[in-house]
Amino acid sequence: MDIAPARTIEWVGNSNGAARIIDQTLLPNEYKHLDIADVETMWEAIKVLRVRGAPAIGIAAAFGLYLAVRNSAAPDFAAFEAEVSEAARYLGTARPTAVNLFWALKRIQKLVAAHSALPVAGIKALMLSEATVMIDEDNAVCRAIGSFGAPLLAQPPERTICNVLTHCNAGGLATAQWGTALAPVYVAAEQGRAMHVFADETRPLLQGARLTAWELQQAGIPVTVITDNMAATVMAQGKVDAVIVGADRVAANGDVANKIGTFGVAVLAREFHIPFYVAAPLSSIDMSLASGELIPIEERKAEEVTQGFGKRTAPEGVQVYNPAFDVTPHRYITALITEQGVVHPPFDAALKQLFETPV
Amino acid sequence: MDIAPARTIEWVGNSNGAARIIDQTLLPNEYKHLDIADVETMWEAIKVLRVRGAPAIGIAAAFGLYLAVRNSAAPDFAAFEAEVSEAARYLGTARPTAVNLFWALKRIQKLVAAHSALPVAGIKALMLSEATVMIDEDNAVCRAIGSFGAPLLAQPPERTICNVLTHCNAGGLATAQWGTALAPVYVAAEQGRAMHVFADETRPLLQGARLTAWELQQAGIPVTVITDNMAATVMAQGKVDAVIVGADRVAANGDVANKIGTFGVAVLAREFHIPFYVAAPLSSIDMSLASGELIPIEERKAEEVTQGFGKRTAPEGVQVYNPAFDVTPHRYITALITEQGVVHPPFDAALKQLFETPV
Repeated sequence: MDIAPARTIEWVGNSNGAARIIDQTLLPNEYKHLDIADVETMWEAIKVLRVRGAPAIGIAAAFGLYLAVRNSAAPDFAAFEAEVSEAARYLGTARPTAVNLFWALKRIQKLVAAHSALPVAGIKALMLSEATVMIDEDNAVCRAIGSFGAPLLAQPPERTICNVLTHCNAGGLATAQWGTALAPVYVAAEQGRAMHVFADETRPLLQGARLTAWELQQAGIPVTVITDNMAATVMAQGKVDAVIVGADRVAANGDVANKIGTFGVAVLAREFHIPFYVAAPLSSIDMSLASGELIPIEERKAEEVTQGFGKRTAPEGVQVYNPAFDVTPHRYITALITEQGVVHPPFDAALKQLFETPV
Repeated sequence: MDIAPARTIEWVGNSNGAARIIDQTLLPNEYKHLDIADVETMWEAIKVLRVRGAPAIGIAAAFGLYLAVRNSAAPDFAAFEAEVSEAARYLGTARPTAVNLFWALKRIQKLVAAHSALPVAGIKALMLSEATVMIDEDNAVCRAIGSFGAPLLAQPPERTICNVLTHCNAGGLATAQWGTALAPVYVAAEQGRAMHVFADETRPLLQGARLTAWELQQAGIPVTVITDNMAATVMAQGKVDAVIVGADRVAANGDVANKIGTFGVAVLAREFHIPFYVAAPLSSIDMSLASGELIPIEERKAEEVTQGFGKRTAPEGVQVYNPAFDVTPHRYITALITEQGVVHPPFDAALKQLFETPV
């Protein structure tokens, strides 16, 4: 089966071209591309989440930096580098808490600094090329996760379809194209296997209903949306063969911080003897954190819960608890799927070995 | 502490008075009473869920039947009884699947039939009186559940507050005033104990956020709204001392059908060693059903999930699974709280005994 998830971000045209993104603020109601040709428009797109997801934001920032200086008339390297620095500072203000944004900006700035001997035009070309390399790298990581993960998705012999449950969106829309948690599903479908995904809608922000359901539908993979509290029922009915989720951060012992609700799904999966996999590129594994208890959990504003759908659904003044993430203890996790292979428990030893082994 | 949950339905004035209900369609944004003085208005109120919850609907139907015939000029009993029958048929069309509606209508019709010798005016008076008796009975059942349940709600010795988690609304708003699952919380608060409730918002229809949060806030009991998928996190943090939910139907073996999401909460409660109680009046225990697998589960329309709050939150044409209830197997249930006392496992034997013992 030919599978082609929508491209979240790509470069179109020559050096005078534009960064083309899917405007995710319009999903799932409208599928529209936006060709971004100046840094201010890219800043706004990052700011208002037209492009979102750590890997995708990093790539967007890299393109943004190129767009900021491609028409630069800087007379020498020093002047050019100052323009790059100013643009990087500006882009960083779009989402000050997005680690990947700064990582990508620094990567391009280092590249610029390393080529001070080149003419400015040459440096500009390198900047654009590096941004597209970041897409290739992201695709390579996601495809590798997909290849390692696909064999783990199996169904009972009496069924011809494999049912996967996922939470939130760790799909192509959060990366350049293939996603992390959804990559194994895409690769399995490519291999001709019949796949079906239960997408938890993922309150409060509904990334599952809005984004995961949309991108799977686009790619031609059957998907069923459920509210988060239906997971126990579909699992008890024997309708789920595996759970795969993404990770915001993985600790050295294998504890996983991910979108709120992940922990509950993990507990249910264990109760119903369903394997629970976490797809995590090495870049999201933080070996400096001994355990998940050390991961700070962001609390977000009450309105996401009390009026998330445009109208108020809880009484004025009511107390709300709205953590953005939860931490799933490693004992609930069957395996981590990385671009270097599948990591099995005990995670502390296995991760240590993975990071010590030269690639 | 003086606790007075809002009255969901009551009679105001003399025989020319009206049935006063809280218009629940306006909650949680507006707290407004509606004085209903004719059967058509009552029909509409039941139809569009201004009044909802099995016990409350039954009482509303009884008042509706009285309102239909209180100005009757029927010349004899036969003519009067025909009017009552016609009104009962009409009220039954407001919510054809609500078992309690028909139960209440039949109860009043039986009362009418049993008093054919009385003058019509006397029968009318009996009808109104019976409807108010139904409120008293409901309050007695709910208060008894509250009294039996309150001692079960305890906190660890180092804490001065007891934290209860509930799902959906089995509160006063579903009954005349006290509720089933929330009655133990109200009674414990009356006894001067510090109570705090986590209210699962309860997707898709948000009865927890809209109704449970509202009625607890009204009664002065601290409440925190969470999305359904946050229950695992608050439980893991040690913030929940007990779970209490209501029941739509209990089978003879103790399996419980209740609002979708209940089963998942029960699994989590067991995982975190938190007692899981089901408040269930005897009227909701169906001894003719050997197990919960025999309870038919209504599936509701996809739009409740995909556009529950006025705007579309999942892509057009996506598949949706939307069961209204789930069945929690009895092994997850710590005890049932009934108006006759607390029922402990093994439930099959205990329930058999309860129903065989003359009261």
